[in-house]
Amino acid sequence: MEELVGLREGSSGNPVTLRELWGPCPQIRRGIRGGLQWLKQKLFRVGEDWYFLMTLGVLMALISYAMSFAVDRVAGAHNWLYREIGDSHLLRYLSWIMYPMALLSFSSGFSQSITPFSGGSGVPELKVILSGVVLEDYLDIKNFGAKVVGLTCTLASGSTVFLGKVGPFVHLSVMMAAYLGRVRAKAIGESENKSKRNEMLVAGAAVGVATVFAAPFSGVLFSIEVMSSHFSVWDYWRGFFATTCGAFMFRLLAVFSSEQETITSLFKTSFRVDVPFDLPEIFFFVVLGAICGIVSCAYLFCQRVFLGFVKNNPIISKMMATSKPLCSALAALILASITYPPGLGRFMASRLSMNELLNSLLDNNSWALMTRNSSPPWPAEPDPQNLWFEWCHPQFTVLGTLSFFLVMKFWMLILATTIPIPAGYFLPIFIFGAAIGRLIGEVLSVAFPEGIVAGGATNPIMPGGYALAGAAAFSGAVTHSISTALLAFEMTGQIVHALPVLMAVLAANAIAQSCQPSFYDGTIIVKKLPYLPWIRGRHINSHGVIVGHFMNCTITTLAKDTPLEEVVKVVTSTDMPEFPLVESTESQILVGVVRRPHLVQALQAEPPSWAPGRQWCLQDVLAGGCPVEPVTLKLSPETSLHQAHHLLELLNLQSLFVTSQGRAVGSVSWVELEKAISNITNPPTPK
Amino acid sequence: MEELVGLREGSSGNPVTLRELWGPCPQIRRGIRGGLQWLKQKLFRVGEDWYFLMTLGVLMALISYAMSFAVDRVAGAHNWLYREIGDSHLLRYLSWIMYPMALLSFSSGFSQSITPFSGGSGVPELKVILSGVVLEDYLDIKNFGAKVVGLTCTLASGSTVFLGKVGPFVHLSVMMAAYLGRVRAKAIGESENKSKRNEMLVAGAAVGVATVFAAPFSGVLFSIEVMSSHFSVWDYWRGFFATTCGAFMFRLLAVFSSEQETITSLFKTSFRVDVPFDLPEIFFFVVLGAICGIVSCAYLFCQRVFLGFVKNNPIISKMMATSKPLCSALAALILASITYPPGLGRFMASRLSMNELLNSLLDNNSWALMTRNSSPPWPAEPDPQNLWFEWCHPQFTVLGTLSFFLVMKFWMLILATTIPIPAGYFLPIFIFGAAIGRLIGEVLSVAFPEGIVAGGATNPIMPGGYALAGAAAFSGAVTHSISTALLAFEMTGQIVHALPVLMAVLAANAIAQSCQPSFYDGTIIVKKLPYLPWIRGRHINSHGVIVGHFMNCTITTLAKDTPLEEVVKVVTSTDMPEFPLVESTESQILVGVVRRPHLVQALQAEPPSWAPGRQWCLQDVLAGGCPVEPVTLKLSPETSLHQAHHLLELLNLQSLFVTSQGRAVGSVSWVELEKAISNITNPPTPK
Repeated sequence: MEELVGLREGSSGNPVTLRELWGPCPQIRRGIRGGLQWLKQKLFRVGEDWYFLMTLGVLMALISYAMSFAVDRVAGAHNWLYREIGDSHLLRYLSWIMYPMALLSFSSGFSQSITPFSGGSGVPELKVILSGVVLEDYLDIKNFGAKVVGLTCTLASGSTVFLGKVGPFVHLSVMMAAYLGRVRAKAIGESENKSKRNEMLVAGAAVGVATVFAAPFSGVLFSIEVMSSHFSVWDYWRGFFATTCGAFMFRLLAVFSSEQETITSLFKTSFRVDVPFDLPEIFFFVVLGAICGIVSCAYLFCQRVFLGFVKNNPIISKMMATSKPLCSALAALILASITYPPGLGRFMASRLSMNELLNSLLDNNSWALMTRNSSPPWPAEPDPQNLWFEWCHPQFTVLGTLSFFLVMKFWMLILATTIPIPAGYFLPIFIFGAAIGRLIGEVLSVAFPEGIVAGGATNPIMPGGYALAGAAAFSGAVTHSISTALLAFEMTGQIVHALPVLMAVLAANAIAQSCQPSFYDGTIIVKKLPYLPWIRGRHINSHGVIVGHFMNCTITTLAKDTPLEEVVKVVTSTDMPEFPLVESTESQILVGVVRRPHLVQALQAEPPSWAPGRQWCLQDVLAGGCPVEPVTLKLSPETSLHQAHHLLELLNLQSLFVTSQGRAVGSVSWVELEKAISNITNPPTPK
Repeated sequence: MEELVGLREGSSGNPVTLRELWGPCPQIRRGIRGGLQWLKQKLFRVGEDWYFLMTLGVLMALISYAMSFAVDRVAGAHNWLYREIGDSHLLRYLSWIMYPMALLSFSSGFSQSITPFSGGSGVPELKVILSGVVLEDYLDIKNFGAKVVGLTCTLASGSTVFLGKVGPFVHLSVMMAAYLGRVRAKAIGESENKSKRNEMLVAGAAVGVATVFAAPFSGVLFSIEVMSSHFSVWDYWRGFFATTCGAFMFRLLAVFSSEQETITSLFKTSFRVDVPFDLPEIFFFVVLGAICGIVSCAYLFCQRVFLGFVKNNPIISKMMATSKPLCSALAALILASITYPPGLGRFMASRLSMNELLNSLLDNNSWALMTRNSSPPWPAEPDPQNLWFEWCHPQFTVLGTLSFFLVMKFWMLILATTIPIPAGYFLPIFIFGAAIGRLIGEVLSVAFPEGIVAGGATNPIMPGGYALAGAAAFSGAVTHSISTALLAFEMTGQIVHALPVLMAVLAANAIAQSCQPSFYDGTIIVKKLPYLPWIRGRHINSHGVIVGHFMNCTITTLAKDTPLEEVVKVVTSTDMPEFPLVESTESQILVGVVRRPHLVQALQAEPPSWAPGRQWCLQDVLAGGCPVEPVTLKLSPETSLHQAHHLLELLNLQSLFVTSQGRAVGSVSWVELEKAISNITNPPTPK
């Protein structure tokens, strides 16, 4: 009977083989086979996002690890050379400056020769791209190699040029995401979709941060805060998946290469956990946050002014345009000469690499208290167990070296920011903040050597905690983001300072956000990239403003009955990329949009047939095959400013048409919104 | 000369007093006064959001702390009574069951008599409110007291009923936020704005979570994940500010009441930090995540079925409607009888409170290994230093008690969920997950007593780490959120398991999200609340669907020239809340929207003047003062499904009109979207 059922079912579906028919338990086997089929279908669907997200994470982790590996080797060779070259000061000096000069000029020359977009961090441009603007070729996979090589060279020059990895790596990761997205679209034979593409890019940005710091949580959050102003929980989940794959792979490689015993955080700290800080210290943490906020304002201001100066000064900008490698080498010469260890570098721990700098600053002992009586001798080379010896100087004291470091790195970092090489600016800012925090922590530990709450068990102040808070607060203030606090915890593997660090970050952000645009926004402004401004402070009276108040009323419409001569005149006299098409000159009912290239093509096609005998009009051109695109979304003059802003922001649009009773009455673009927003915050003085 | 300047300036502004004029350095003093004035103006602006956010955080922290304090005292009294009542089993049993029965029936009766919305967690309703639906009176501050008292009683009955605090507390916090928002609007003399109000509610939800767990980060993230599908970075920053104030205040009170020496996390753990887990253990963490995902599917399914059964069974639902306190008391009787410590409670650590349960499960020693040879004796009362003794049983072993706990609590929790009292379901789920993790951790520690990577320094398996991962994974799967991982870290103050926990949460979510709606969505479905479905899995072919395919084409429009009789007929025959108004029956150009009440009022007003001599039409009614509201946003038939979904979601709208060339051709609401989405995922079989 069972066999019969099997036969009947088989005959309607797949043909039943004899073996199958006579084998034991055909039904169970069929069931298992069906289950496997279902599982296979569930798991191995081509075009399924998850595979691409995983591939993205794993690939970027491999690249990130390979890059770190190469950088370590090159930096190791530099250290070896410097150590072994003998005691001649000239030779040592030459060996110290030669490396960064060579690396930077190669980095600059090589990457710039392949792609003009390789300079800087790339984050500002990504922010613009994610808000919907198309920057041609910026995400082309062809530039991938150039950026990887350039970035590796930059990083290999170490703490001398004091630059990081995050920004360009985010750019690399987004490039890869865009490429994988195209591959995916091709694999499933579908034209690329804009919103799908954006989803991939957002995940790419998150992976970029996560694979540099092995921080899946803050990778997602930081990239969202920095890149966008809105996000969907859906993107956030996808981001988590991709960043977890990336961070896991990145740390796994460290385990496999025997660097680590198991998967841990990148900059492990060992803060006291039972009483990490006394309650009154919270006050000093907030003060530290405020100081970081003020310093960040000064930094952002100087950075923007200097960047503008370099851009606008005719001599420098000409030099930058024609001989970038030379400029880079010059800047490297200045930076390397200052950090020469037996010279000024002695006072700013210049022998430590970027990672060692951060590791040393997060040390949980108070250096000022430990060196109160005697300073440790300056070792011949940095001692990996006691990196902080580099910060000690018998006369200058720890406080002196930290202050000197801060003063010098302030302008050196600004100088380094203008070098046209692929380089990230997050890690230097993070370290700078850690140094601010360390300085304040050391001062406090000198002021309260017994801890603040005396009596009972004394808990001495840990300057490392302040360094952590300072790093998070300063980097948060410069980038206008709060998730740097979480990043600090994920990087150090300890979360005992959760509340004080968060409060410091909030204080720093409150000051920085009310005084200066963020580092990335500042770059966007200097580079004159298009950008949609915030409705700052969400002014109360902004809720009453409607589109009718500020829309662009003087739009050029083309009616179906417009005579051809006039159409030609309009097309030649303006450079609008698209024209709103209306039903007739009289009714002005919005029908759709005609793109300029299509219209020009249609106008140029077969002009002879348009004999002068009749009044030809646009209608005829459209009938001739010029495509009209629909307008998917229309505003009213009564739409509020907030709604319009939301819409442009969320849907990544640059402009929207305004219709009233079907008539096209105006348009709203970023320009109009910017004007309207600036009118709210700085109301125009009535004349 | 200086005096003169001062005089001149003074005379134009404030009158200059003699003292001021003759005092030293008038300019400097004026400068200082100006600076203070500016600071005052900056800081003390009425209606400034920050004050309200801070007030919200601090107030909710005070309430949360006061509630915990009261609950501790009541539970302490219960324990004292149970301990002191003597050895008679009957008396002990009565004292054990009396408390929860009395508390639950009071909680149910008191809160239900004041407000009918007080049952359950409130999170599903908040989710609906935040998506733009108006649920009348749900956020009325009048119900605040009822919910506070009811929740306190529920919590005081402890682990017997096994319910938590989060959900109702989020509801309370949102109530408070809505109230403060109204106060703010009144203070600055402005009518309340919808988008402003929503901003406050979102912050309120975050504060609710943060002040229960003292977890500012995950408070924000969890509330976002659970409540909304989109959010703006702006809301996220405001959330952080409010939650930080709340969490800080909450922990500060614990320090002031000498519970804690300094500000620390709520459930402090002491996991080994140098090698928290061996690399191969990652695999078991992922397996644990998968198990949690499967169990969560079973739980969600049973929970929804049982809730539906209670709602639809005529006898039970009648009893629930008429005598809620009796139902609650009955349920409490069942739950308390089962957890009676000398009875079955012996096998499920029922003498521990909710917090003690969680604390004991996160213990970093392996109980199975420690009790291999001999079990510790059952103490007369739980030992605060060795809470885990409660889990030990000489014959049953630790594995037995943990399994028994899981099996019993599975259905007991489902039963508890249906009791009509204000109660949260997050903490029980979190503890349940921790028990799953603990069980698997203990099994692993028995299987690999020397740790997994043998040789060298052995790192024994810490079942506490698995408990942490299990808690995060199970609660994440039930609520469909990933930030429970972060919550676990913030609650325990350790982040050493970052990657394994995150991977477990992702695995659990992958399974749960593909099989079952979340706990909150399930409740929304059972309660038949309106809700906008997700575009699940973001199906590839969903990108091609446009509004024209699924919009509601049969909309009833009112034209300006519609005769009055017909208008009356339309109004009486349908119950639409608003009617689209078009220019004329022929043109169908959309002009605006007429609200039903306005129209009815206008139609009823002065009918005598509408003499029969002329054909009166709608135009006359409108001219008579019936207000027409503008349509601020119009779709086209060519708008994509994704765009329409985005718009309704982001702008918290329930429906949008579709116009084509100005003509009203249809409308899109949640109903149409739901149909379109279900058609994508389950394409209709062609007939």
